Amino acid sequence: MNSAPSSLDIEARYSCARTLALEAAQLGMSHYRQRNTLLVEHKGNDLQDVVSIADRQIEDFIRARLAERFPEDGFLGEESGSSDLAARCVWVIDPIDGTACFVNGLHNWCVSIGLLIDGEPHLGAIADPNHNELFHGCLGQGAFVNDTPLKVSAATNVAQGLTGTGTFHPRGKEHFIPFLEKLLAEGGMFFRNGSGALMTAYVAAGRLLGYYETELKSWDCLAGLVLLKEAGGQVNDFFRNDGLIRGNPYLVACPGVYQQLAEMIGPSLDG
Amino acid sequence: MNSAPSSLDIEARYSCARTLALEAAQLGMSHYRQRNTLLVEHKGNDLQDVVSIADRQIEDFIRARLAERFPEDGFLGEESGSSDLAARCVWVIDPIDGTACFVNGLHNWCVSIGLLIDGEPHLGAIADPNHNELFHGCLGQGAFVNDTPLKVSAATNVAQGLTGTGTFHPRGKEHFIPFLEKLLAEGGMFFRNGSGALMTAYVAAGRLLGYYETELKSWDCLAGLVLLKEAGGQVNDFFRNDGLIRGNPYLVACPGVYQQLAEMIGPSLDG
Repeated sequence: MNSAPSSLDIEARYSCARTLALEAAQLGMSHYRQRNTLLVEHKGNDLQDVVSIADRQIEDFIRARLAERFPEDGFLGEESGSSDLAARCVWVIDPIDGTACFVNGLHNWCVSIGLLIDGEPHLGAIADPNHNELFHGCLGQGAFVNDTPLKVSAATNVAQGLTGTGTFHPRGKEHFIPFLEKLLAEGGMFFRNGSGALMTAYVAAGRLLGYYETELKSWDCLAGLVLLKEAGGQVNDFFRNDGLIRGNPYLVACPGVYQQLAEMIGPSLDG
Repeated sequence: MNSAPSSLDIEARYSCARTLALEAAQLGMSHYRQRNTLLVEHKGNDLQDVVSIADRQIEDFIRARLAERFPEDGFLGEESGSSDLAARCVWVIDPIDGTACFVNGLHNWCVSIGLLIDGEPHLGAIADPNHNELFHGCLGQGAFVNDTPLKVSAATNVAQGLTGTGTFHPRGKEHFIPFLEKLLAEGGMFFRNGSGALMTAYVAAGRLLGYYETELKSWDCLAGLVLLKEAGGQVNDFFRNDGLIRGNPYLVACPGVYQQLAEMIGPSLDG
Protein backbone atom coordinates (compact mmCIF):
# COMPACT_ATOMS: atom_id res chain seq x y z
CA MET A 1 0.00 0.00 0.00
CA ASN A 2 1.40 3.40 -0.96
CA SER A 3 1.20 5.83 1.91
CA ALA A 4 1.12 9.59 1.84
CA PRO A 5 4.56 11.22 1.98
CA SER A 6 4.59 12.66 5.47
CA SER A 7 6.05 16.05 4.69
CA LEU A 8 3.18 16.97 2.36
CA ASP A 9 -0.31 17.96 3.36
CA ILE A 10 -2.19 15.43 1.25
CA GLU A 11 -5.52 15.99 2.93
CA ALA A 12 -5.46 19.70 2.17
CA ARG A 13 -4.74 18.95 -1.47
CA TYR A 14 -7.43 16.26 -1.68
CA SER A 15 -9.99 18.58 -0.18
CA CYS A 16 -8.89 21.41 -2.47
CA ALA A 17 -9.16 19.19 -5.57
CA ARG A 18 -12.75 18.29 -4.76
CA THR A 19 -13.80 21.84 -3.98
CA LEU A 20 -12.07 23.29 -7.02
CA ALA A 21 -13.54 20.66 -9.35
CA LEU A 22 -17.05 21.45 -8.12
CA GLU A 23 -16.53 25.22 -8.41
CA ALA A 24 -14.99 24.92 -11.87
CA ALA A 25 -17.86 22.68 -12.98
CA GLN A 26 -20.37 25.34 -11.94
CA LEU A 27 -18.36 27.90 -13.89
CA GLY A 28 -18.58 25.50 -16.81
CA MET A 29 -22.35 25.24 -16.43
CA SER A 30 -22.73 29.00 -16.67
CA HIS A 31 -21.03 28.83 -20.08
CA TYR A 32 -22.86 25.64 -21.04
CA ARG A 33 -26.26 27.22 -20.54
CA GLN A 34 -25.25 29.91 -23.05
CA ARG A 35 -23.35 27.61 -25.38
CA ASN A 36 -25.01 28.95 -28.50
CA THR A 37 -23.05 32.16 -28.07
CA LEU A 38 -19.67 30.50 -27.33
CA LEU A 39 -16.80 31.18 -29.67
CA VAL A 40 -15.37 27.82 -30.72
CA GLU A 41 -11.94 27.44 -32.28
CA HIS A 42 -10.20 24.47 -33.84
CA LYS A 43 -6.76 23.32 -32.79
CA GLY A 44 -4.53 22.90 -35.82
CA ASN A 45 -6.06 21.30 -38.89
CA ASP A 46 -8.33 18.83 -37.15
CA LEU A 47 -11.90 20.15 -37.20
CA GLN A 48 -12.78 17.64 -34.46
CA ASP A 49 -10.28 19.13 -32.00
CA VAL A 50 -12.16 22.09 -30.60
CA VAL A 51 -11.55 24.51 -27.77
CA SER A 52 -13.78 27.25 -26.42
CA ILE A 53 -13.27 30.32 -24.31
CA ALA A 54 -14.82 28.30 -21.48
CA ASP A 55 -11.91 25.83 -21.51
CA ARG A 56 -9.37 28.62 -21.21
CA GLN A 57 -11.25 30.58 -18.58
CA ILE A 58 -11.77 27.52 -16.38
CA GLU A 59 -8.15 26.46 -16.66
CA ASP A 60 -7.02 29.96 -15.70
CA PHE A 61 -9.36 29.87 -12.71
CA ILE A 62 -8.06 26.50 -11.48
CA ARG A 63 -4.43 27.37 -12.12
CA ALA A 64 -4.65 30.65 -10.24
CA ARG A 65 -6.35 29.06 -7.24
CA LEU A 66 -3.78 26.27 -7.07
CA ALA A 67 -0.86 28.69 -7.41
CA GLU A 68 -2.22 30.77 -4.55
CA ARG A 69 -2.84 27.80 -2.26
CA PHE A 70 0.12 25.57 -3.15
CA PRO A 71 2.75 27.83 -4.73
CA GLU A 72 5.42 25.14 -4.48
CA ASP A 73 3.47 22.70 -6.68
CA GLY A 74 3.95 22.14 -10.40
CA PHE A 75 1.21 22.28 -13.01
CA LEU A 76 0.28 20.67 -16.32
CA GLY A 77 -2.92 21.74 -18.07
CA GLU A 78 -4.45 20.98 -21.44
CA GLU A 79 -4.75 24.61 -22.48
CA SER A 80 -2.00 26.58 -20.74
CA GLY A 81 0.91 24.17 -20.67
CA SER A 82 3.22 23.26 -17.82
CA SER A 83 5.34 24.73 -15.06
CA ASP A 84 7.62 23.20 -12.39
CA LEU A 85 7.24 19.64 -13.57
CA ALA A 86 10.17 18.70 -11.33
CA ALA A 87 8.20 19.60 -8.19
CA ARG A 88 7.19 16.74 -5.87
CA CYS A 89 3.52 17.61 -6.40
CA VAL A 90 2.31 18.26 -9.94
CA TRP A 91 -1.32 19.06 -10.68
CA VAL A 92 -2.59 17.66 -13.98
CA ILE A 93 -5.88 19.12 -15.08
CA ASP A 94 -8.34 19.22 -17.93
CA PRO A 95 -10.68 22.19 -17.49
CA ILE A 96 -13.36 20.66 -19.74
CA ASP A 97 -12.91 17.07 -20.75
CA GLY A 98 -15.38 16.42 -23.56
CA THR A 99 -15.23 19.83 -25.23
CA ALA A 100 -16.85 18.56 -28.44
CA CYS A 101 -19.84 17.47 -26.36
CA PHE A 102 -19.79 20.72 -24.43
CA VAL A 103 -19.97 22.96 -27.49
CA ASN A 104 -22.62 20.79 -29.18
CA GLY A 105 -25.00 20.51 -26.24
CA LEU A 106 -24.38 16.85 -25.49
CA HIS A 107 -24.29 16.42 -21.75
CA ASN A 108 -21.06 14.46 -21.34
CA TRP A 109 -18.30 16.67 -20.09
CA CYS A 110 -16.53 17.22 -16.81
CA VAL A 111 -13.73 18.98 -14.99
CA SER A 112 -10.79 16.71 -14.15
CA ILE A 113 -8.20 17.59 -11.50
CA GLY A 114 -5.47 15.09 -10.64
CA LEU A 115 -2.32 15.23 -8.59
CA LEU A 116 0.96 13.42 -9.15
CA ILE A 117 3.18 12.97 -6.13
CA ASP A 118 6.75 11.88 -6.85
CA GLY A 119 5.62 10.92 -10.34
CA GLU A 120 2.67 8.72 -9.30
CA PRO A 121 -1.05 9.58 -9.60
CA HIS A 122 -2.04 10.13 -6.00
CA LEU A 123 -5.44 11.79 -5.87
CA GLY A 124 -8.10 12.99 -8.24
CA ALA A 125 -11.49 14.66 -8.55
CA ILE A 126 -13.79 14.59 -11.58
CA ALA A 127 -16.87 16.79 -11.41
CA ASP A 128 -19.82 16.13 -13.73
CA PRO A 129 -22.31 18.93 -13.10
CA ASN A 130 -24.94 17.65 -15.55
CA HIS A 131 -25.48 14.58 -13.42
CA ASN A 132 -24.50 15.94 -10.02
CA GLU A 133 -21.71 13.45 -9.70
CA LEU A 134 -18.33 14.10 -8.11
CA PHE A 135 -15.96 11.18 -8.60
CA HIS A 136 -12.98 11.38 -6.29
CA GLY A 137 -10.32 9.26 -4.69
CA CYS A 138 -6.98 9.25 -2.95
CA LEU A 139 -4.36 6.52 -2.85
CA GLY A 140 -5.07 4.19 0.04
CA GLN A 141 -8.35 5.91 0.93
CA GLY A 142 -10.67 4.39 -1.68
CA ALA A 143 -12.64 6.02 -4.45
CA PHE A 144 -16.16 7.41 -4.42
CA VAL A 145 -18.94 8.92 -6.47
CA ASN A 146 -20.27 11.55 -4.10
CA ASP A 147 -20.32 9.41 -0.91
CA THR A 148 -20.76 5.99 -2.51
CA PRO A 149 -17.67 3.74 -2.80
CA LEU A 150 -16.64 2.75 -6.33
CA LYS A 151 -15.95 -0.81 -7.37
CA VAL A 152 -15.15 -2.12 -10.84
CA SER A 153 -17.37 -4.71 -12.53
CA ALA A 154 -17.08 -8.40 -11.64
CA ALA A 155 -17.63 -9.33 -15.31
CA THR A 156 -15.33 -11.94 -16.85
CA ASN A 157 -16.17 -11.43 -20.54
CA VAL A 158 -16.71 -8.38 -22.75
CA ALA A 159 -20.11 -9.78 -23.77
CA GLN A 160 -21.39 -9.00 -20.30
CA GLY A 161 -21.55 -5.24 -20.69
CA LEU A 162 -20.47 -2.08 -22.48
CA THR A 163 -16.91 -1.03 -23.33
CA GLY A 164 -15.91 2.61 -23.67
CA THR A 165 -13.93 3.49 -26.78
CA GLY A 166 -12.34 6.40 -28.51
CA THR A 167 -9.87 7.42 -31.15
CA PHE A 168 -8.65 10.73 -32.40
CA HIS A 169 -5.41 11.00 -34.28
CA PRO A 170 -5.21 9.57 -37.79
CA ARG A 171 -2.47 7.18 -36.70
CA GLY A 172 -4.62 5.89 -33.88
CA LYS A 173 -7.52 5.15 -36.21
CA GLU A 174 -5.48 2.42 -37.88
CA HIS A 175 -5.45 0.57 -34.58
CA PHE A 176 -9.05 1.30 -33.79
CA ILE A 177 -10.93 -0.46 -36.57
CA PRO A 178 -9.26 -3.87 -36.03
CA PHE A 179 -9.93 -3.58 -32.30
CA LEU A 180 -13.59 -2.74 -32.83
CA GLU A 181 -14.05 -5.63 -35.22
CA LYS A 182 -12.77 -8.02 -32.59
CA LEU A 183 -14.82 -6.43 -29.82
CA LEU A 184 -18.04 -6.89 -31.83
CA ALA A 185 -17.06 -10.39 -32.93
CA GLU A 186 -16.58 -11.45 -29.31
CA GLY A 187 -20.02 -10.13 -28.33
CA GLY A 188 -18.88 -6.84 -26.85
CA MET A 189 -20.59 -3.50 -27.46
CA PHE A 190 -18.93 -0.13 -27.74
CA PHE A 191 -19.86 3.14 -26.10
CA ARG A 192 -18.40 6.58 -26.78
CA ASN A 193 -19.61 9.63 -24.89
CA GLY A 194 -16.65 11.83 -25.82
CA SER A 195 -15.14 12.25 -22.35
CA GLY A 196 -12.11 10.14 -21.45
CA ALA A 197 -12.22 11.23 -17.81
CA LEU A 198 -15.86 10.23 -17.44
CA MET A 199 -15.41 6.92 -19.22
CA THR A 200 -12.48 6.14 -16.89
CA ALA A 201 -14.65 7.04 -13.90
CA TYR A 202 -17.41 4.82 -15.29
CA VAL A 203 -15.01 1.87 -15.45
CA ALA A 204 -14.09 2.54 -11.82
CA ALA A 205 -17.81 2.64 -11.00
CA GLY A 206 -18.49 -0.67 -12.76
CA ARG A 207 -20.79 1.00 -15.31
CA LEU A 208 -18.43 0.17 -18.18
CA LEU A 209 -16.34 -3.00 -18.25
CA GLY A 210 -13.37 -1.24 -19.77
CA TYR A 211 -12.28 1.70 -21.88
CA TYR A 212 -9.78 1.77 -24.74
CA GLU A 213 -8.53 4.89 -26.48
CA THR A 214 -5.94 4.64 -29.24
CA GLU A 215 -4.15 7.68 -27.87
CA LEU A 216 -5.00 9.69 -24.81
CA LYS A 217 -3.39 12.64 -23.08
CA SER A 218 -2.46 12.49 -19.42
CA TRP A 219 -4.83 15.31 -18.42
CA ASP A 220 -7.74 13.27 -19.73
CA CYS A 221 -7.06 10.35 -17.42
CA LEU A 222 -4.78 11.23 -14.54
CA ALA A 223 -7.50 11.92 -11.99
CA GLY A 224 -9.46 8.92 -13.20
CA LEU A 225 -6.51 6.58 -12.83
CA VAL A 226 -6.46 7.05 -9.06
CA LEU A 227 -10.16 6.17 -8.87
CA LEU A 228 -9.63 3.19 -11.12
CA LYS A 229 -6.84 1.72 -9.03
CA GLU A 230 -8.66 2.30 -5.76
CA ALA A 231 -11.77 0.65 -7.25
CA GLY A 232 -9.82 -2.47 -8.23
CA GLY A 233 -9.23 -1.81 -11.94
CA GLN A 234 -6.21 -2.39 -14.14
CA VAL A 235 -4.40 -0.02 -16.52
CA ASN A 236 -1.70 -0.44 -19.17
CA ASP A 237 1.77 1.10 -18.91
CA PHE A 238 0.43 4.53 -19.81
CA PHE A 239 3.32 6.64 -18.48
CA ARG A 240 6.12 4.95 -20.41
CA ASN A 241 8.12 6.99 -22.96
CA ASP A 242 7.16 10.38 -21.54
CA GLY A 243 3.44 9.51 -21.58
CA LEU A 244 2.72 12.30 -19.11
CA ILE A 245 3.64 14.90 -21.71
CA ARG A 246 3.06 13.14 -25.00
CA GLY A 247 0.19 10.77 -24.30
CA ASN A 248 -0.05 7.08 -25.15
CA PRO A 249 -2.49 4.33 -26.00
CA TYR A 250 -4.73 3.76 -23.01
CA LEU A 251 -6.62 0.79 -21.64
CA VAL A 252 -8.41 0.54 -18.32
CA ALA A 253 -10.69 -2.33 -17.36
CA CYS A 254 -11.98 -4.52 -14.60
CA PRO A 255 -9.62 -7.45 -13.93
CA GLY A 256 -11.98 -10.01 -15.51
CA VAL A 257 -11.86 -8.47 -19.00
CA TYR A 258 -8.53 -6.58 -19.04
CA GLN A 259 -6.60 -9.38 -20.70
CA GLN A 260 -9.36 -10.04 -23.25
CA LEU A 261 -9.33 -6.38 -24.31
CA ALA A 262 -5.52 -6.18 -24.31
CA GLU A 263 -5.36 -9.15 -26.68
CA MET A 264 -7.83 -7.48 -29.05
CA ILE A 265 -5.62 -4.40 -29.15
CA GLY A 266 -2.39 -6.31 -29.62
CA PRO A 267 1.21 -5.07 -29.37
CA SER A 268 0.40 -1.42 -30.17
CA LEU A 269 -0.98 -1.04 -26.62
CA ASP A 270 2.39 -1.02 -24.93
CA GLY A 271 4.59 -1.03 -28.03
CA MET B 1 -47.86 20.27 -45.66
CA ASN B 2 -49.65 17.34 -44.05
CA SER B 3 -52.60 18.47 -42.02
CA ALA B 4 -54.32 16.76 -39.16
CA PRO B 5 -57.16 14.46 -40.19
CA SER B 6 -60.19 16.42 -39.04
CA SER B 7 -62.13 13.58 -37.51
CA LEU B 8 -59.43 12.81 -34.98
CA ASP B 9 -58.57 14.76 -31.86
CA ILE B 10 -54.89 15.24 -32.57
CA GLU B 11 -54.35 17.83 -29.88
CA ALA B 12 -55.66 15.54 -27.16
CA ARG B 13 -53.31 12.82 -28.32
CA TYR B 14 -50.32 15.18 -28.54
CA SER B 15 -50.98 16.49 -25.06
CA CYS B 16 -51.46 12.94 -23.74
CA ALA B 17 -48.18 11.78 -25.33
CA ARG B 18 -46.23 14.53 -23.59
CA THR B 19 -47.86 13.98 -20.20
CA LEU B 20 -47.51 10.21 -20.37
CA ALA B 21 -43.87 10.39 -21.43
CA LEU B 22 -43.06 12.63 -18.47
CA GLU B 23 -44.96 10.45 -16.01
CA ALA B 24 -43.43 7.26 -17.36
CA ALA B 25 -39.95 8.83 -17.16
CA GLN B 26 -40.49 9.59 -13.48
CA LEU B 27 -41.58 6.00 -12.95
CA GLY B 28 -38.36 5.02 -14.71
CA MET B 29 -36.34 7.24 -12.37
CA SER B 30 -37.78 5.51 -9.31
CA HIS B 31 -36.41 2.22 -10.67
CA TYR B 32 -33.17 3.83 -11.85
CA ARG B 33 -32.32 5.12 -8.40
CA GLN B 34 -32.55 1.52 -7.15
CA ARG B 35 -30.99 -0.06 -10.20
CA ASN B 36 -28.61 -2.22 -8.18
CA THR B 37 -31.57 -4.32 -7.06
CA LEU B 38 -33.19 -4.63 -10.53
CA LEU B 39 -33.61 -8.07 -12.00
CA VAL B 40 -32.09 -7.99 -15.48
CA GLU B 41 -32.82 -10.64 -18.11
CA HIS B 42 -31.36 -11.30 -21.53
CA LYS B 43 -33.47 -11.64 -24.63
CA GLY B 44 -32.54 -14.79 -26.51
CA ASN B 45 -28.85 -15.60 -26.79
CA ASP B 46 -27.51 -12.06 -27.08
CA LEU B 47 -26.09 -10.99 -23.72
CA GLN B 48 -26.17 -7.39 -24.94
CA ASP B 49 -29.97 -7.42 -25.42
CA VAL B 50 -31.25 -6.82 -21.92
CA VAL B 51 -34.65 -6.12 -20.42
CA SER B 52 -35.60 -5.30 -16.85
CA ILE B 53 -38.77 -5.36 -14.84
CA ALA B 54 -38.79 -1.57 -15.25
CA ASP B 55 -39.22 -1.86 -19.03
CA ARG B 56 -42.23 -4.14 -18.62
CA GLN B 57 -43.84 -2.16 -15.84
CA ILE B 58 -43.54 1.14 -17.70
CA GLU B 59 -44.89 -0.33 -20.92
CA ASP B 60 -47.89 -1.77 -19.02
CA PHE B 61 -48.47 1.64 -17.44
CA ILE B 62 -48.43 3.47 -20.78
CA ARG B 63 -50.48 0.86 -22.58
CA ALA B 64 -53.19 0.85 -19.90
CA ARG B 65 -53.44 4.63 -19.89
CA LEU B 66 -53.69 4.83 -23.68
CA ALA B 67 -56.29 2.04 -23.82
CA GLU B 68 -58.39 3.88 -21.26
CA ARG B 69 -58.11 7.24 -23.01
CA PHE B 70 -58.17 6.19 -26.68
CA PRO B 71 -59.72 2.71 -26.78
CA GLU B 72 -60.11 2.85 -30.55
CA ASP B 73 -56.35 3.26 -31.15
CA GLY B 74 -53.89 0.50 -32.00
CA PHE B 75 -50.66 -0.19 -30.13
CA LEU B 76 -47.16 -1.47 -30.81
CA GLY B 77 -44.69 -1.74 -27.95
CA GLU B 78 -41.21 -3.19 -27.59
CA GLU B 79 -42.09 -5.47 -24.71
CA SER B 80 -45.77 -6.40 -25.02
CA GLY B 81 -46.32 -6.63 -28.76
CA SER B 82 -49.10 -5.19 -30.89
CA SER B 83 -52.86 -4.84 -31.13
CA ASP B 84 -55.20 -3.24 -33.68
CA LEU B 85 -52.47 -2.30 -36.13
CA ALA B 86 -55.19 -1.62 -38.71
CA ALA B 87 -56.58 1.28 -36.65
CA ARG B 88 -56.14 4.82 -38.04
CA CYS B 89 -54.11 5.79 -34.98
CA VAL B 90 -51.38 3.41 -33.79
CA TRP B 91 -49.20 4.23 -30.80
CA VAL B 92 -45.62 3.02 -31.10
CA ILE B 93 -43.71 3.12 -27.85
CA ASP B 94 -40.45 2.14 -26.23
CA PRO B 95 -40.84 2.23 -22.44
CA ILE B 96 -37.10 2.53 -21.85
CA ASP B 97 -34.93 3.20 -24.87
CA GLY B 98 -31.35 2.58 -23.80
CA THR B 99 -31.97 -0.30 -21.39
CA ALA B 100 -28.30 -1.33 -21.38
CA CYS B 101 -27.44 2.17 -20.14
CA PHE B 102 -30.33 2.08 -17.68
CA VAL B 103 -29.25 -1.14 -15.99
CA ASN B 104 -25.58 -0.14 -15.90
CA GLY B 105 -26.04 3.33 -14.45
CA LEU B 106 -25.11 5.27 -17.56
CA HIS B 107 -27.45 8.21 -17.83
CA ASN B 108 -28.62 7.88 -21.42
CA TRP B 109 -32.11 6.45 -21.56
CA CYS B 110 -35.55 7.83 -22.24
CA VAL B 111 -39.22 7.03 -22.73
CA SER B 112 -40.35 7.27 -26.35
CA ILE B 113 -44.02 7.62 -27.35
CA GLY B 114 -44.93 8.08 -31.00
CA LEU B 115 -48.17 8.03 -32.93
CA LEU B 116 -48.80 6.88 -36.48
CA ILE B 117 -51.88 8.26 -38.20
CA ASP B 118 -52.89 6.51 -41.41
CA GLY B 119 -49.46 4.89 -41.47
CA GLU B 120 -47.42 8.10 -41.13
CA PRO B 121 -45.49 9.26 -38.02
CA HIS B 122 -47.59 12.19 -36.84
CA LEU B 123 -46.53 13.16 -33.33
CA GLY B 124 -44.00 12.12 -30.75
CA ALA B 125 -42.67 12.74 -27.26
CA ILE B 126 -39.31 11.62 -25.87
CA ALA B 127 -38.73 12.22 -22.17
CA ASP B 128 -35.18 12.20 -20.77
CA PRO B 129 -35.52 12.60 -17.00
CA ASN B 130 -31.79 12.60 -16.29
CA HIS B 131 -31.41 15.86 -18.18
CA ASN B 132 -34.88 17.32 -17.68
CA GLU B 133 -35.48 17.35 -21.41
CA LEU B 134 -38.78 16.62 -23.11
CA PHE B 135 -38.40 16.45 -26.88
CA HIS B 136 -41.73 16.66 -28.65
CA GLY B 137 -43.29 17.53 -31.96
CA CYS B 138 -46.36 17.24 -34.12
CA LEU B 139 -46.61 17.30 -37.89
CA GLY B 140 -46.99 20.88 -39.10
CA GLN B 141 -46.53 22.33 -35.61
CA GLY B 142 -42.74 22.19 -35.28
CA ALA B 143 -40.55 20.32 -32.82
CA PHE B 144 -39.22 21.40 -29.44
CA VAL B 145 -37.01 20.50 -26.54
CA ASN B 146 -39.10 21.71 -23.60
CA ASP B 147 -40.15 25.09 -25.08
CA THR B 148 -37.19 25.66 -27.39
CA PRO B 149 -37.68 25.00 -31.13
CA LEU B 150 -35.46 22.32 -32.66
CA LYS B 151 -33.44 22.84 -35.80
CA VAL B 152 -30.96 20.48 -37.43
CA SER B 153 -27.32 21.46 -37.95
CA ALA B 154 -26.29 23.67 -40.86
CA ALA B 155 -23.08 21.61 -41.32
CA THR B 156 -22.13 20.54 -44.81
CA ASN B 157 -19.45 17.95 -44.00
CA VAL B 158 -19.14 15.17 -41.42
CA ALA B 159 -15.85 16.67 -40.25
CA GLN B 160 -17.80 19.55 -38.72
CA GLY B 161 -19.25 17.61 -35.80
CA LEU B 162 -20.21 14.31 -34.22
CA THR B 163 -22.19 11.48 -35.81
CA GLY B 164 -24.30 9.08 -33.76
CA THR B 165 -23.79 5.39 -34.50
CA GLY B 166 -24.94 2.00 -33.44
CA THR B 167 -25.10 -1.62 -34.42
CA PHE B 168 -26.55 -4.63 -32.77
CA HIS B 169 -27.33 -7.72 -34.73
CA PRO B 170 -24.43 -9.83 -36.04
CA ARG B 171 -25.56 -9.24 -39.60
CA GLY B 172 -25.57 -5.51 -39.07
CA LYS B 173 -22.01 -5.51 -37.79
CA GLU B 174 -20.75 -6.50 -41.22
CA HIS B 175 -22.06 -3.20 -42.55
CA PHE B 176 -20.88 -1.19 -39.59
CA ILE B 177 -17.12 -1.57 -39.74
CA PRO B 178 -16.78 -0.42 -43.39
CA PHE B 179 -19.02 2.57 -42.61
CA LEU B 180 -16.97 3.55 -39.57
CA GLU B 181 -13.72 3.28 -41.50
CA LYS B 182 -15.04 5.76 -44.06
CA LEU B 183 -16.47 8.08 -41.42
CA LEU B 184 -13.09 8.33 -39.69
CA ALA B 185 -11.23 8.63 -42.99
CA GLU B 186 -13.38 11.60 -43.99
CA GLY B 187 -12.70 13.38 -40.68
CA GLY B 188 -15.93 12.44 -38.94
CA MET B 189 -16.14 11.28 -35.35
CA PHE B 190 -18.55 8.74 -33.92
CA PHE B 191 -20.67 8.92 -30.81
CA ARG B 192 -22.72 6.14 -29.23
CA ASN B 193 -24.75 6.73 -26.10
CA GLY B 194 -26.88 3.62 -26.45
CA SER B 195 -30.26 5.29 -27.03
CA GLY B 196 -31.58 5.48 -30.59
CA ALA B 197 -34.44 7.74 -29.60
CA LEU B 198 -32.13 10.23 -27.91
CA MET B 199 -29.60 10.20 -30.74
CA THR B 200 -32.46 10.89 -33.20
CA ALA B 201 -33.64 13.76 -31.01
CA TYR B 202 -30.06 15.05 -30.87
CA VAL B 203 -29.91 15.13 -34.67
CA ALA B 204 -33.17 17.10 -34.68
CA ALA B 205 -31.63 19.46 -32.11
CA GLY B 206 -28.46 20.00 -34.18
CA ARG B 207 -26.27 18.42 -31.49
CA LEU B 208 -25.32 15.51 -33.74
CA LEU B 209 -24.92 15.89 -37.51
CA GLY B 210 -26.48 12.53 -38.22
CA TYR B 211 -27.11 9.10 -36.81
CA TYR B 212 -26.69 5.71 -38.49
CA GLU B 213 -27.76 2.38 -37.05
CA THR B 214 -27.28 -0.81 -39.04
CA GLU B 215 -30.67 -2.04 -37.90
CA LEU B 216 -33.20 -0.26 -35.75
CA LYS B 217 -36.69 -1.11 -34.56
CA SER B 218 -39.58 1.26 -35.18
CA TRP B 219 -40.27 1.87 -31.47
CA ASP B 220 -36.73 3.21 -31.10
CA CYS B 221 -37.24 5.93 -33.67
CA LEU B 222 -40.89 6.60 -34.44
CA ALA B 223 -41.36 9.52 -32.06
CA GLY B 224 -37.99 10.92 -33.03
CA LEU B 225 -38.79 10.85 -36.74
CA VAL B 226 -41.54 13.43 -36.29
CA LEU B 227 -39.13 15.74 -34.50
CA LEU B 228 -36.50 15.17 -37.13
CA LYS B 229 -38.78 16.08 -40.03
CA GLU B 230 -40.18 19.14 -38.28
CA ALA B 231 -36.60 20.25 -37.49
CA GLY B 232 -35.57 20.01 -41.15
CA GLY B 233 -33.77 16.67 -41.18
CA GLN B 234 -33.75 13.82 -43.68
CA VAL B 235 -34.36 10.09 -43.19
CA ASN B 236 -33.94 7.00 -45.36
CA ASP B 237 -36.84 4.80 -46.50
CA PHE B 238 -37.14 3.22 -43.08
CA PHE B 239 -40.69 1.85 -43.37
CA ARG B 240 -40.19 -0.17 -46.53
CA ASN B 241 -40.65 -3.96 -46.41
CA ASP B 242 -42.67 -3.97 -43.21
CA GLY B 243 -40.09 -1.83 -41.39
CA LEU B 244 -42.66 -0.91 -38.75
CA ILE B 245 -42.72 -4.48 -37.49
CA ARG B 246 -39.34 -5.86 -38.54
CA GLY B 247 -37.04 -2.87 -38.36
CA ASN B 248 -34.55 -1.70 -40.99
CA PRO B 249 -31.26 0.10 -41.46
CA TYR B 250 -31.69 3.67 -40.30
CA LEU B 251 -30.08 6.96 -41.24
CA VAL B 252 -31.13 10.41 -40.13
CA ALA B 253 -29.09 13.54 -40.76
CA CYS B 254 -29.11 17.22 -41.44
CA PRO B 255 -29.49 17.93 -45.18
CA GLY B 256 -25.87 19.05 -45.56
CA VAL B 257 -24.36 15.68 -44.61
CA TYR B 258 -27.15 13.20 -45.39
CA GLN B 259 -25.80 12.29 -48.81
CA GLN B 260 -22.23 12.01 -47.56
CA LEU B 261 -23.29 9.54 -44.88
CA ALA B 262 -25.58 7.61 -47.25
CA GLU B 263 -22.66 7.11 -49.64
CA MET B 264 -20.48 5.78 -46.84
CA ILE B 265 -23.17 3.23 -46.00
CA GLY B 266 -23.78 2.18 -49.58
CA PRO B 267 -26.61 0.08 -51.02
CA SER B 268 -27.37 -1.79 -47.79
CA LEU B 269 -29.11 1.33 -46.49
CA ASP B 270 -32.19 0.97 -48.66
CA GLY B 271 -31.38 -2.40 -50.20
